[in-house]
Amino acid sequence: MTMNNIEKFLKNSNLEYPLLVMDLSKVSDSYKKLKKAFPYYKIYYAVKANPAKEILNCLKNQGSYFDVSSKNEINLCLSESIDPSFLSFGNTVKKEKDILWAYKKGIKLFAFDSIEELNKIEKNAKNAQVFCRLQVPNQGANWPLSKKFGCSKEMAKKLLIEAKKKNLSPVGVSFHVGSQQTNINRWVESLKLCFDVYSYLKENNIFLDFINIGGGIPVNYFDFNFDLKIFSKKLNMEIKNIFGDAPINFILEPGRFLVAEAGVIESEVILVSKKNNKDKKRWVYLDIGRFGGLAETESEAIRYKITTVNNNSECSPVNIAGPSCDGADIIYEKYNYQLPKNLKSGDRVRFHSAGAYTSVYVSDFNGLQRLREYFIE
Amino acid sequence: MTMNNIEKFLKNSNLEYPLLVMDLSKVSDSYKKLKKAFPYYKIYYAVKANPAKEILNCLKNQGSYFDVSSKNEINLCLSESIDPSFLSFGNTVKKEKDILWAYKKGIKLFAFDSIEELNKIEKNAKNAQVFCRLQVPNQGANWPLSKKFGCSKEMAKKLLIEAKKKNLSPVGVSFHVGSQQTNINRWVESLKLCFDVYSYLKENNIFLDFINIGGGIPVNYFDFNFDLKIFSKKLNMEIKNIFGDAPINFILEPGRFLVAEAGVIESEVILVSKKNNKDKKRWVYLDIGRFGGLAETESEAIRYKITTVNNNSECSPVNIAGPSCDGADIIYEKYNYQLPKNLKSGDRVRFHSAGAYTSVYVSDFNGLQRLREYFIE
Repeated sequence: MTMNNIEKFLKNSNLEYPLLVMDLSKVSDSYKKLKKAFPYYKIYYAVKANPAKEILNCLKNQGSYFDVSSKNEINLCLSESIDPSFLSFGNTVKKEKDILWAYKKGIKLFAFDSIEELNKIEKNAKNAQVFCRLQVPNQGANWPLSKKFGCSKEMAKKLLIEAKKKNLSPVGVSFHVGSQQTNINRWVESLKLCFDVYSYLKENNIFLDFINIGGGIPVNYFDFNFDLKIFSKKLNMEIKNIFGDAPINFILEPGRFLVAEAGVIESEVILVSKKNNKDKKRWVYLDIGRFGGLAETESEAIRYKITTVNNNSECSPVNIAGPSCDGADIIYEKYNYQLPKNLKSGDRVRFHSAGAYTSVYVSDFNGLQRLREYFIE
Repeated sequence: MTMNNIEKFLKNSNLEYPLLVMDLSKVSDSYKKLKKAFPYYKIYYAVKANPAKEILNCLKNQGSYFDVSSKNEINLCLSESIDPSFLSFGNTVKKEKDILWAYKKGIKLFAFDSIEELNKIEKNAKNAQVFCRLQVPNQGANWPLSKKFGCSKEMAKKLLIEAKKKNLSPVGVSFHVGSQQTNINRWVESLKLCFDVYSYLKENNIFLDFINIGGGIPVNYFDFNFDLKIFSKKLNMEIKNIFGDAPINFILEPGRFLVAEAGVIESEVILVSKKNNKDKKRWVYLDIGRFGGLAETESEAIRYKITTVNNNSECSPVNIAGPSCDGADIIYEKYNYQLPKNLKSGDRVRFHSAGAYTSVYVSDFNGLQRLREYFIE
């Protein structure tokens, strides 16, 4: 790896661990790359991935829109002077009072996937624009979305027609193929469902404005290399095949893709030990674990690339665990991680591509030191 | 269920959801019950289960000792005027600077399970008392501790002798059978390992002061009824069989047992929906989920008893999910929960025996409303 800004910062820092350093220039770079790959798409950053105001401002300056899920996320955006017309209230599960509050703040665009949610929007956000989320296949995602969100295409058709009757403005359909989706076919299958809904509505004189193809674009972790250019070329071609010249816009809702690779977590080794003298695998205990930010290592779903600092010695297999007294706080046990044989307490390890879905999961469990976040440009 | 203090509080409250109400009189009751069942044991409350100062004070007044895992947990206890001699630094994974800090604060008792940890204690806490944690079988625990903690009995023997050479005071051995352990045989097997270590050390002129039998005593959730009297009678008999009249003390480290049944979480239903018209199972979305406090529903490990408020209508099967935009934020999908057919948004549901390992896991993920904690006496 070449020495980059983050490494320079970490080398010269004398800070307490664990910490997350975010390179904002990399956030801008990722935004630009995505915009280049999908030039005619509106990009709505999924704020939940990392809602730091530095990131919101960085993306605002790039012209980004924002996908928000709660009153607090909306407040964060508004307090950074992001115009409410740039926000999409994308959670299909909203309290009535929050819909009303958001509507009064100027939010115009709301997601739904059920009749009860549509009724709540009708009551609290008159004439609002609404889009319906479809349930789509998720296989192939490292962090799938299961059946929690979306409805069938048949239900979506009925609900969007119902929206029109309620004097709401049915403007789109959305889907999400699951975070870190590695199979392009999931997008293609989902887009076909969207086209079916789009066509049906057109026949019923409802003209959708957009298809929201969600997030899920992978980033590079330990064992996966992703080429955005190849991916976008293929996907744009498929979209062309499915939608032809239909007058429809497209929306992307990336979270991970925009911020993951901009972040590095540096953590201190607290202990290296064996359970008995015959053990071939050592246990390495860090000052960050599943309840301190590494929630996505649940079931070893997201496998970060891990490096050590100032240590190029020979490696051997390890289990890696967090610092809490919870037996479930194991980071990697099944997957084949290796770390230097002479690693010891006080040494440091780095988790790469750790800018998304880490700082947001921090809890105070066990009273352990919280992950601190630093920003460089 | 009879109307109790918590229900009275919730009935008359006009608070924002989600909330956790803790009945401190029930915490005292559980302490007294445990003391009655194990009259000669020292009880060290595992602070991590719920570190609220109201609970620490309540247990301090009962004469409890405290098992702490971090600098923050120690600070919490000290700030409630708990004497440092009542604290056991039970985490086997400690930073050197935290060992030194704790030692200076007056902590005398430290856990370890490896040579590296023992070296750190020797360096930073001269002449301290140390106890070695054994790795024991965990099968049968709903929330197991895996192989993350403890060492083999052979290693423990060597390490305790080594501790003596380092001028530390080897005072005990400990184990933990896993949280919510439903099989008494796990304690029996573990106690036999302890006796083996105890006897070996005795032959080497090291006389241990205590066996710490950890926590793991179950509480009553959805589908489990536990009788402390029967359990303690059996266990005390087994201990008598194994240890005879050996001059040794016993320590218990309960967390869940002391506080779980004292707490009820009340949550608001945000949405009830179906994914398509053929679905037999509804989805119920609550304002609390896995990242807002219900972390132990991971893989549906802990199954809370759930009731609805003011709704006795007929029930039918449901999936229950949290409010965040994370597909992994599902509470129960596989297990057979049923809720009233006419349940709707705005209704409330209660999670019983929710006073342990809930508030401690709260994160700010998705900017959702944090769980608030209230205390009644």
